[in-house]
Amino acid sequence: MHLGLIGLGRMGGNIARRLMRDGHSVAVYDVDAKARQALADDGATAVDSLAGFLEALPAPRAVWVMVPAGDITEKTVQELAGLLEKGDTIIDGGNSNWHDDVRRAKQLSEQGLHYIDVGTSGGVWGLDRGYCMMIGGDKAVVDRLDPIFKTLAPGIGDVEKTPNREKHDPRAELGYLHTGPAGSGHFVKMVHNGIEYGLMQAYAEGFDVMRNRNQASLPEGERFDLNMADIAEVWRRGSVVSSWLLDLCSIALAKDPGLENFSGFVNDSGEGRWTIEAAIEEAVPAEVLTAALYTRFRSRQEHTYAEKMLSAMRLGFGGHVEGKQ
Amino acid sequence: MHLGLIGLGRMGGNIARRLMRDGHSVAVYDVDAKARQALADDGATAVDSLAGFLEALPAPRAVWVMVPAGDITEKTVQELAGLLEKGDTIIDGGNSNWHDDVRRAKQLSEQGLHYIDVGTSGGVWGLDRGYCMMIGGDKAVVDRLDPIFKTLAPGIGDVEKTPNREKHDPRAELGYLHTGPAGSGHFVKMVHNGIEYGLMQAYAEGFDVMRNRNQASLPEGERFDLNMADIAEVWRRGSVVSSWLLDLCSIALAKDPGLENFSGFVNDSGEGRWTIEAAIEEAVPAEVLTAALYTRFRSRQEHTYAEKMLSAMRLGFGGHVEGKQ
Amino acid sequence: MHLGLIGLGRMGGNIARRLMRDGHSVAVYDVDAKARQALADDGATAVDSLAGFLEALPAPRAVWVMVPAGDITEKTVQELAGLLEKGDTIIDGGNSNWHDDVRRAKQLSEQGLHYIDVGTSGGVWGLDRGYCMMIGGDKAVVDRLDPIFKTLAPGIGDVEKTPNREKHDPRAELGYLHTGPAGSGHFVKMVHNGIEYGLMQAYAEGFDVMRNRNQASLPEGERFDLNMADIAEVWRRGSVVSSWLLDLCSIALAKDPGLENFSGFVNDSGEGRWTIEAAIEEAVPAEVLTAALYTRFRSRQEHTYAEKMLSAMRLGFGGHVEGKQ
Amino acid sequence: MHLGLIGLGRMGGNIARRLMRDGHSVAVYDVDAKARQALADDGATAVDSLAGFLEALPAPRAVWVMVPAGDITEKTVQELAGLLEKGDTIIDGGNSNWHDDVRRAKQLSEQGLHYIDVGTSGGVWGLDRGYCMMIGGDKAVVDRLDPIFKTLAPGIGDVEKTPNREKHDPRAELGYLHTGPAGSGHFVKMVHNGIEYGLMQAYAEGFDVMRNRNQASLPEGERFDLNMADIAEVWRRGSVVSSWLLDLCSIALAKDPGLENFSGFVNDSGEGRWTIEAAIEEAVPAEVLTAALYTRFRSRQEHTYAEKMLSAMRLGFGGHVEGKQ
Repeated sequence: MHLGLIGLGRMGGNIARRLMRDGHSVAVYDVDAKARQALADDGATAVDSLAGFLEALPAPRAVWVMVPAGDITEKTVQELAGLLEKGDTIIDGGNSNWHDDVRRAKQLSEQGLHYIDVGTSGGVWGLDRGYCMMIGGDKAVVDRLDPIFKTLAPGIGDVEKTPNREKHDPRAELGYLHTGPAGSGHFVKMVHNGIEYGLMQAYAEGFDVMRNRNQASLPEGERFDLNMADIAEVWRRGSVVSSWLLDLCSIALAKDPGLENFSGFVNDSGEGRWTIEAAIEEAVPAEVLTAALYTRFRSRQEHTYAEKMLSAMRLGFGGHVEGKQ
Repeated sequence: MHLGLIGLGRMGGNIARRLMRDGHSVAVYDVDAKARQALADDGATAVDSLAGFLEALPAPRAVWVMVPAGDITEKTVQELAGLLEKGDTIIDGGNSNWHDDVRRAKQLSEQGLHYIDVGTSGGVWGLDRGYCMMIGGDKAVVDRLDPIFKTLAPGIGDVEKTPNREKHDPRAELGYLHTGPAGSGHFVKMVHNGIEYGLMQAYAEGFDVMRNRNQASLPEGERFDLNMADIAEVWRRGSVVSSWLLDLCSIALAKDPGLENFSGFVNDSGEGRWTIEAAIEEAVPAEVLTAALYTRFRSRQEHTYAEKMLSAMRLGFGGHVEGKQ
Repeated sequence: MHLGLIGLGRMGGNIARRLMRDGHSVAVYDVDAKARQALADDGATAVDSLAGFLEALPAPRAVWVMVPAGDITEKTVQELAGLLEKGDTIIDGGNSNWHDDVRRAKQLSEQGLHYIDVGTSGGVWGLDRGYCMMIGGDKAVVDRLDPIFKTLAPGIGDVEKTPNREKHDPRAELGYLHTGPAGSGHFVKMVHNGIEYGLMQAYAEGFDVMRNRNQASLPEGERFDLNMADIAEVWRRGSVVSSWLLDLCSIALAKDPGLENFSGFVNDSGEGRWTIEAAIEEAVPAEVLTAALYTRFRSRQEHTYAEKMLSAMRLGFGGHVEGKQ
Repeated sequence: MHLGLIGLGRMGGNIARRLMRDGHSVAVYDVDAKARQALADDGATAVDSLAGFLEALPAPRAVWVMVPAGDITEKTVQELAGLLEKGDTIIDGGNSNWHDDVRRAKQLSEQGLHYIDVGTSGGVWGLDRGYCMMIGGDKAVVDRLDPIFKTLAPGIGDVEKTPNREKHDPRAELGYLHTGPAGSGHFVKMVHNGIEYGLMQAYAEGFDVMRNRNQASLPEGERFDLNMADIAEVWRRGSVVSSWLLDLCSIALAKDPGLENFSGFVNDSGEGRWTIEAAIEEAVPAEVLTAALYTRFRSRQEHTYAEKMLSAMRLGFGGHVEGKQ
C-alpha cells in the first residue's frame, strides 16, 4: 500500500522502515532535510512540503502524522486538512489527547476527510518487535488501511495463545485492534499508559522496600543486604510478577545495581494525567494509578510548600523544630 | 491529692504546675537537678531518686511517668515496679505503644500494682488550656485518681455544648475520659495522632494547590496570585474547615506567608505508624491516614531508590534520559 | 444597600433575611411563587421575572444569583446579561466551576457589565453564624459592594485574634476576602471544599479504626470496645484535632453512636473533583484530597469491575475461588 | 537426592512429582491417607508419621514443610525439631512470616539443626513451568541442597537473556536464588507478593476506567463501548504492559468479558500486609502497594463505618440526606 508519513523522529522513521521492509511504498516528510534524506536512502520517496504528498500519493491518500508535541500535531493536521482531497485520510499516530481526536474527526468529516487515531506502544523497540496499535475511527477506513496496520503490528509471534478467542476479533492476536470510533484508539492507549505508571510504581516501591532492608537503624538479625539485580532476574522465570517491565528492571540492575546513574527526577507525559481525569469523570476510584502519577510530581521538587506547612503546624502545637536530617 | 511525677520536661513540668495551682501536692523527680530545683522553687517536693517517692508520698501511691523516649519509659516503669508497694499505681502519661501498656498492666497486676495509661494531647499549650486526656486502666483506680485528671483537664470552657449528651459520660465534656482497660488510653491517643496527620496533610495539600496557582506555565487568565495568610484567616470564621490546626496555619502564615523558615523535612513520631498497623490488623482501609504518613517519609529523602528505578525503566522502553529540571 | 437576589432555596432565602435584618433592601425572585411570597412576608420586594429587577433596583444594580445547579446558573446569568444595563453587576454566589467565572467575566465585561464570583461556606448555619465568603472580581466593584459582604460575613466574633495581622487585609478577620480577579473566589472555595473532603475522611478513618477494635478475630487482650460518642466529645476540649467538623461528629454520635441511620452512600459535589484537576494541572501531589474523593466514588458501588478483575487474576494464578464472606 | 516432604496439597504434591520426574527420591507425609497413597502411586515413599522420615531418609536429612496455614507450619516445624538429628535440615516452603524464620533458624541452630526458608512462586502452574524460588539460610546448606532447587526451578527456558549478567549469580537465570540468611527468602517472596498486589490493582483500575467509558451520564461522542477481552489480548503483543498477569486477564476476559462469575470480594493473604509493615518500619513510602491492599479490605465490606461518618457530617453542615442511589 501507499502511505504518507510526517515526522521522522525515532518512532516515525522506524515505522517507515518497517513498512518498506514489507513492500509498502512510503512517502515521507520532515522539516529536517537530513532526516528526509536518511529515509530516502532507505528507499522512501521524500517530499519537501506537506503539499508534496498530493503528488507523491495516489488517491485516496492516507497520511500518517507522527510528530512529538501536541501543538505541532494540531498545526500539522489542520494544514493537511487544507491540502487533502475528499476521501483522503489523516492518521494521528502520536500521543494526542483523545478529546482532540473527537473534535478533529468531526471537523474533518464535514470536509469529506477521514480521521484515524492510532495509539502506538512499542517505543524504541518497535522496528524489530513491531508496534502494538489501538485504532479509533470509521470501520470502513480502518479496514481499508488494514495492510498497513498488519505490517506494523508484531504479529502472533511466539506468545502463547489465549484459549476461547475463536469468537473474538482475530486482529488482537496479531497486535492491533480497531477499538471503536475516533478518539477510542488514543483513549485506550491513554489508559495503557496509566496502567504502565501503576505497574512501574509497584515494582519501584517493592525494590525500594528490599533495598532499604539494610538500614543500620533496623534491629540486628532483621537486616538483609539483598541483591537487587539477582532478585529482578530470578523473578523473570516462573514468578507471578514476570513482565516486560521487569525484564527492563533486570537489564538496568545488572549494569548498575545502585542505579547511581539516575537522578531520580521522573517526568510524566500527558496520558497519566488524562487517565486520572477520565477516572474522575466516570467516578471510578483509581488510587494506584493516581498515586503513581503523584510520585512523579513529587520527584521533581526539592520540597513542597505542603511539607513546610506541616512543619509550621508542628512548630505551632508541639514546639517541634525540624532540621535537615 | 498526692502525686509523684517523673520527668520534668516541657510536658511534665507543666503538668506538675497545673496540679499545684489547684492545690494538689506533687513530688517530682528528674535526672536533671536543675529541673528538680525549678519545680521545688514552684512548690513541689523534689526527690533525688525513684526510691525517694516511697517516703514523699502517702500510700497508696500514684506515680506519673512523663519521660519522652519509649525505652526510658520502659526502664523507669520497671525500676518503679521494683520499688513500689502493693496497691500503688504507675501512670504512663507519655506516648507509649499501647501494646506495651497491655503487657505492663498484666505484669504489674501480678505484683499487686496498678497501671494506668494516659494519652495526653495539648502539647506546649496545656499549662493554660489544660490537657485532653484518654485514660486506660481499671475503673476503680481511674475513679480514685479522678481529682488529678479533673484538675489537668481543660474543663467545659466556652465550648458550645453538644446536645443529647445526658446519657453519656459527663467527664468527656470536661476533657478527659476513661476509655477502657489498660492500653485503650494510648490506643485512642494513637488514633488521635493518626487523624492529626491526616488533617494536617489535607490543609497542607490544599494550600499547596492554591500557592501553585501562580505558576508561569499555567494559561494566562487561569493564574492567580493568592494570599495564603488571608485565606487561612478568613476560613477561621464560619467556614466548614475551621479548626485549631487552621488557627495554627493562620498564625504561621501571618508571620511568614512563604514559609521560608521551614526546611520541609517533616518528622513522624510512632503514633502515625502504629495507627496504620492497627488499621491493617483490623482490615480497615485507611488511605488518607497512610498517605499522610508516607508524605513525611518522602519529605526526609532527597530522592528515593524507587524514583531512580522509574527512570531506569523509562530509559529502557522509551530511551528517555531524565535530568534535573 | 440595594441588592437583587435570585434563588430562594435554603441558602438564598437566608442570605436575603440576613441582609434585611441589617437594614439592606432586597428584591427577590424565584420560579416558585410561594418562596417569593415567604420572603415578601419577611420584608423583601418580590419580583416575578428577571426583568422585574430593572425596576425594583436603582442603578448601578447588583443581582446575586444563588441557584443550585450549574446549568441553571449559566442560563440565569446569560438571561440577566441580556437584561441588565451598563455598569450593573451580576454576582454568582453558588458553587460554579471557576473556569465558568473566568469566561463569564470576560464576556460580560465586553458588554460593560461586571461579574463577581463569591464562594460561600456556612451551609445551613449561615443565617445565624454568618457566611464565610471568598470573593473574586474587579477590586472597585468588590469595594462598592462591601456593605453587603460585611453584613453577610460572620464578623470577628469571639474567635481568638491571630497575632501579626496588622499588615494583612482586615476583612479576613471579619470572615470575607477579596481573593483576586474573577474566578479566584470560586477557586479558593473549591480548594476549601477539597480540604473539607480530606479532613472529613481523616476523622472517618480514625473512627473506623477505633470502632473496629472490637473485632472478634483480634487477639484477646488487644480488643477494646471503645465509645465513639465520648471520644469525639473529649477531643473537642484541648486536643489538637478539635474543629467544627469534629463538633458535628460529636453531635451525630451522641444521638446515634452506631450511625445506623446512615446508608454509607456518600455523594460528592463538583468541587472535590475540580480540586484534583487543578492539582494535576499544577503537578502538585494531592494524595489525601484524592483518596478522600475516591472513597466516596467507591461508597456508591456495590462492587467495582476492578475488584472482579482482581478475583479473576487470583483464580488464574492460584486457583483461588472467592465467595461472599 | 533424597528429600522428605510434608503436606501434599496442590503445591506440595506437585513439588514431589517434579522432583521424582527428575530422578530424586521423595518420602512424603500428609495427615490425609488418600493424599499419601496418591503420591505413593506416583513413586514416592509414603510415611505415616513425621517420625517415619527418620527411617525413610538417609542422614543428613532434609525435610520440606509445605502446609498452608501459619500455625500448622509452626506446629510441624516444632514437632520435626524434636525428632530430627544433628545436621538435619528443615525447609519451610510455605508462606511464613519472615520473622518466624529468623526466630526458628536461631532456635534450631542451638539444637544443631539447619533451617532454610523458601519463598515459592508459581502456584498451580509450577509442575510444568517450574517454581521460582527465593531461598534464605546458611550458604553451605543451600549449596548442598542445590540439586533439589535446580530441579524445581523453571530453568533458563526460552526467556531472553539479560545482558551483563556474567558477574552475577548464575542461579538467578535458572529461576532460583540464595537471597541471604534465614528469613531473607520469605522476605523477598513477601515483597514479590506486595508488588503482585500493586500490579494487579494497576490493571484492574485501568480496565475499570475503560469499562466505565460507556456510562450513559457521559457526554455523547465521549462515550465508548470498549471490548475488554480484545484490549487485554492486543496488549500482550509488543506493548509496554505485557506480563504474565495480563495473560491471565486476557484468558479470563476471553471467557467472560463482563466478569459476571466473580463476586468482587477479594481476599488478601499475609504477605501484602507484611510488606506494608516492612515499608513503614523502613520509612519507605509505598503508596501503590498500600492502596492495592486497602482496595481488597474495602471489597469485603458492604459499607464502612467511615462512610457513614462522612454522611453524618454532611447532614450536619449541609443538611444533605444521602440515600441509596
